[in-house]
Amino acid sequence: MEQRNIALRLSYTGTAYHGWQVQKNASSVAETLEKALSSVVEHPVKVTGAGRTDAGVHAQVYVANFRTTSGIPIDRLPLAVNTRLPDDISVYKATVVPDSFNAIGSCLKKEYTYRIYNSRIRDPFYVNRVWFYPKPLDEHIMAKAAKQFVGTHDFAAVRSVGTETRTTVRTVHYFDVERRGEIIDCRVCADGFLYNMVRAMVGTCIYAAEGKLDPADIPEILSSRNRTLAGPTAPPDGLYMTNLWYDEDVL
Amino acid sequence: MEQRNIALRLSYTGTAYHGWQVQKNASSVAETLEKALSSVVEHPVKVTGAGRTDAGVHAQVYVANFRTTSGIPIDRLPLAVNTRLPDDISVYKATVVPDSFNAIGSCLKKEYTYRIYNSRIRDPFYVNRVWFYPKPLDEHIMAKAAKQFVGTHDFAAVRSVGTETRTTVRTVHYFDVERRGEIIDCRVCADGFLYNMVRAMVGTCIYAAEGKLDPADIPEILSSRNRTLAGPTAPPDGLYMTNLWYDEDVL
Repeated sequence: MEQRNIALRLSYTGTAYHGWQVQKNASSVAETLEKALSSVVEHPVKVTGAGRTDAGVHAQVYVANFRTTSGIPIDRLPLAVNTRLPDDISVYKATVVPDSFNAIGSCLKKEYTYRIYNSRIRDPFYVNRVWFYPKPLDEHIMAKAAKQFVGTHDFAAVRSVGTETRTTVRTVHYFDVERRGEIIDCRVCADGFLYNMVRAMVGTCIYAAEGKLDPADIPEILSSRNRTLAGPTAPPDGLYMTNLWYDEDVL
Repeated sequence: MEQRNIALRLSYTGTAYHGWQVQKNASSVAETLEKALSSVVEHPVKVTGAGRTDAGVHAQVYVANFRTTSGIPIDRLPLAVNTRLPDDISVYKATVVPDSFNAIGSCLKKEYTYRIYNSRIRDPFYVNRVWFYPKPLDEHIMAKAAKQFVGTHDFAAVRSVGTETRTTVRTVHYFDVERRGEIIDCRVCADGFLYNMVRAMVGTCIYAAEGKLDPADIPEILSSRNRTLAGPTAPPDGLYMTNLWYDEDVL
């Protein structure tokens, strides 16, 4: 069989993993997926993911691609892989894609959702799935702060150093903050994200809601490129990759 | 301080516990709660719960009561206990109740909800929180079967032996089956439940949906008092205690 390039749509909960990326001496989603795929296609597999989610970060929507010479029918692949995967990772769809397709390089836009549980008492059903924030938060001030990040900016002030990147300029398409009862969802879409950028922007919105900075100060904070002027990095548990956009029909 | 009888409203996820009840060499919700309460009130505490949930069974609503000579203000009790509890148990409310109040004896009605995830592919976000059932289920046939259990009957055919009980006659007030997308919720309310009764009734509804028995056979199955004629016991992960009714304002 000729080599095929295959895109997988999957989802996972990140609690048990040290992130997406393969690491030494730590279990990663990519490594777990590679093992399951290798067992199905009967040769070693290398997967490319849509982004490096951190330890504890979840993905409701995620895309990865890999190459195989196996002749397994594409429709049978998801179930075959799932029987070899732990319960916290599921493959929903497999698509044969052009050889040029690359889960990260071909990705046009990404959406993350950061979920805050803003309640006086924690909820056992949300453990590891939200940021439990017991102090009252004004979501309107958070939304005002979030709006300041929309557009094309240098986001160096809201990233953690650690990953090499050509440029720290990104375009945020939208950043909406919405409350439903005690849940506050912060949905942000961009052409790409710097390391810890969503969590630092959410931490900055929280700082605004707490009066520790003014939403109107955010443009100046971005211009400063100074990480210490923005808010803290929100914890990973509340962060979900929730959507991806490609030219190919892989979702 | 005089002894007070205090009712607690709490919720918990049952995955990490061997059920509500204190057991030898196994961690239980009751024991975990007793330890946290003892540390707050500074004397040994014995709690009485609204029912014996099994290993892996959850409670969105649960009531327990205990007696204390501590003078701690009742409003401060929930947060004080929560700081001493693991994340998978939360106390929402504490109420001083008459000395005669007993979380199980004073309970007028209980509601359980059994949640099925009826989808071809499992969802990592539902692990330990649903019964993942990949074969298609007709919820209308399940609802028809569920209706047969409503009323006052001898439920010996749908219980597991193991707990002593005066009588196996109970009154089921409602038993509704509702689908929202891939989730099927089975909500059942009764004056009381026998051991494994909800899970055996749900297993019987599933058997009906699979054509392994006719909903119209259920009255005869109940009359037989023969456990082997009903459907299997559904797994614990999908079971939640979701409501309780008392004369006192403890919820």
